[in-house]
Amino acid sequence: MPETGYVSSHTEHGITTIEFFHPKSNSLPLKMLDELTQEIHYAGNHDTRVVILKSAGDNAFCAGASFDELSAIKNEKEGQNFFQGFANVINAMRKCNKFIIGRIQGKCVGGGVGLAAAVDYAIAINKTEIKLSELSIGIGPFVVGPAIERKIGTSAFSQLAIDATLWRNADWAKKKGLFAEVHETVQNMDESVYRLANSLAHSSPEAIAEMKKMFWKGTENWDALLNERAAISGKLILNDFSKNAIEKFKLKIK
Amino acid sequence: MPETGYVSSHTEHGITTIEFFHPKSNSLPLKMLDELTQEIHYAGNHDTRVVILKSAGDNAFCAGASFDELSAIKNEKEGQNFFQGFANVINAMRKCNKFIIGRIQGKCVGGGVGLAAAVDYAIAINKTEIKLSELSIGIGPFVVGPAIERKIGTSAFSQLAIDATLWRNADWAKKKGLFAEVHETVQNMDESVYRLANSLAHSSPEAIAEMKKMFWKGTENWDALLNERAAISGKLILNDFSKNAIEKFKLKIK
Amino acid sequence: MPETGYVSSHTEHGITTIEFFHPKSNSLPLKMLDELTQEIHYAGNHDTRVVILKSAGDNAFCAGASFDELSAIKNEKEGQNFFQGFANVINAMRKCNKFIIGRIQGKCVGGGVGLAAAVDYAIAINKTEIKLSELSIGIGPFVVGPAIERKIGTSAFSQLAIDATLWRNADWAKKKGLFAEVHETVQNMDESVYRLANSLAHSSPEAIAEMKKMFWKGTENWDALLNERAAISGKLILNDFSKNAIEKFKLKIK
Repeated sequence: MPETGYVSSHTEHGITTIEFFHPKSNSLPLKMLDELTQEIHYAGNHDTRVVILKSAGDNAFCAGASFDELSAIKNEKEGQNFFQGFANVINAMRKCNKFIIGRIQGKCVGGGVGLAAAVDYAIAINKTEIKLSELSIGIGPFVVGPAIERKIGTSAFSQLAIDATLWRNADWAKKKGLFAEVHETVQNMDESVYRLANSLAHSSPEAIAEMKKMFWKGTENWDALLNERAAISGKLILNDFSKNAIEKFKLKIK
Repeated sequence: MPETGYVSSHTEHGITTIEFFHPKSNSLPLKMLDELTQEIHYAGNHDTRVVILKSAGDNAFCAGASFDELSAIKNEKEGQNFFQGFANVINAMRKCNKFIIGRIQGKCVGGGVGLAAAVDYAIAINKTEIKLSELSIGIGPFVVGPAIERKIGTSAFSQLAIDATLWRNADWAKKKGLFAEVHETVQNMDESVYRLANSLAHSSPEAIAEMKKMFWKGTENWDALLNERAAISGKLILNDFSKNAIEKFKLKIK
Repeated sequence: MPETGYVSSHTEHGITTIEFFHPKSNSLPLKMLDELTQEIHYAGNHDTRVVILKSAGDNAFCAGASFDELSAIKNEKEGQNFFQGFANVINAMRKCNKFIIGRIQGKCVGGGVGLAAAVDYAIAINKTEIKLSELSIGIGPFVVGPAIERKIGTSAFSQLAIDATLWRNADWAKKKGLFAEVHETVQNMDESVYRLANSLAHSSPEAIAEMKKMFWKGTENWDALLNERAAISGKLILNDFSKNAIEKFKLKIK
């Protein structure tokens, strides 16, 4: 297991698979967020037909922001800069003119729920649980909020964000629209991911590009909106409330 | 049991509990609507962390508008004035910079569904049923519509309002997003209300204020919108259709 | 069974029933789309209280666009013209100041899902399945998209449109909000349709007209929007991808 994480990408038969990994439950430092943004941007502008977003390992899909980086933030500018990393990934996903299929093999927390929400079609396994824990560390799901609300609506988004300590299961996530499919085994999930990817790789790219535009209509202001949201999180994370919560949380993990 | 209703409020450990009661199934005359507005407004501007909205008794959460006052409306101005009472409560709830938890222990009808929808997090008991009966008395759920549609979407709101005689159960309301949780006993419901209230009372007020703004983004025009809606209801209630329906209904209750 | 289809309409006790039929699974050529538009427009402007939209036969509610006409399209203008037919029906339904109840007795495909979504209250039978198969013939559900997204949300609409070969059952459609009710027998479905139609025929027309406006608020730009969408479909249908897919499909049917 590598000490630090990685983002990799490879394309075969018109299908680009972007994979990320970080030893701390696939949590994301800024460097990896930037690499994800680049890979998604690249896939959107090169000769591929469909994108699969997945993470390595079989425990967590993505635990959200890197706690080490969160706890090292010293001023508002650094704070906004870090959260902007998530904003950039989400904006790259919505602007990509191909469909992005998410393979969700495990827990999604905070920003990880945001990534799962920003894909066009999420296929998950039934043991997956999700949580928006931001409020318990003194911030909120501001940057990923628009992507989550777009997928599951204002009510489910509020529920998830207000009760920040409660895990919701895959069935809840499917009912609310976050996951399109939930499977009982990794094998079934993977078969479904590749069946759909293969079908889309053989579909009309022009039709897909127009459909992508249609599905994301109304989000044209997200470059600015997610920037503003990153500034809110970047400011709140400097609060004593937040500082204390992060230190406590880091001790608990050790 | 008092002849007339009351609205009470008390704050303890950062939790403000606002309770209303009216002997006629917790239906609301204008005076009580105004008191609710004031109490919610007060909680938003004073030293408390979270609000619980509940009603007394164990039968109905809220039966909507007071029939006695509805039937006494004599002109459009009086009509708009009365329905404006509901508009003011909903606008106070959305503007309150704290989260409002709804404790829904029984039936919600008409405006009562509106109050349950305007809280940020509704915790109900499984015997609760809901109905938007406005059309059966010749009006429509105009003032409470935006709050209900925001929570359960256009489709479920239409279903509820068009089939105005059908009770929907707590499970339906949970699936559609009106209730965040549904419990089997009053004790479980109350434990859940207090667990969440306590957790929010110990969360960052700055983060909560920003989240509240985020959840209600896009409703900035509701002061004007709900005013217009109150005028529509205030006009329709003067129709012969409406007058006859209310008289019939009052006879049936007696 | 007639060689060509028909659209019929009759009004009784304030209830206008509009029925369409086409021997090819109730698929719709432009002529029938225009007749549907006219009948809905007429019902909205004449002395009736409520509209029931149904199709004849007990197999498919509506298989969408006529394949014969799709395959005969020779240039962009003809293409836009054809898809505009669906745009006109949907715009007539949203502007009609009466409620439209849909009786959905069988499969809905493509544009057929659009019609089921554009009614105000859809009552279906449990064997009904739905599919948005547009992408598999190189186009997309552009014209009917806004009506479907309004009813079932962005997430469910995306799921349905991206996985274009998958049938979703009546239970899925009900959970997502496309159908208000799902019944086990034709008789129960019909009883429910007539119970609701009868109730609405005896409700206040003024209140219904205001409620219809409220439910469709925010769609005022659909005349223009659906026009633009018809142009997109009209262009994509001329692609080699689309031409080949339609020819293959026609061979398969024969």
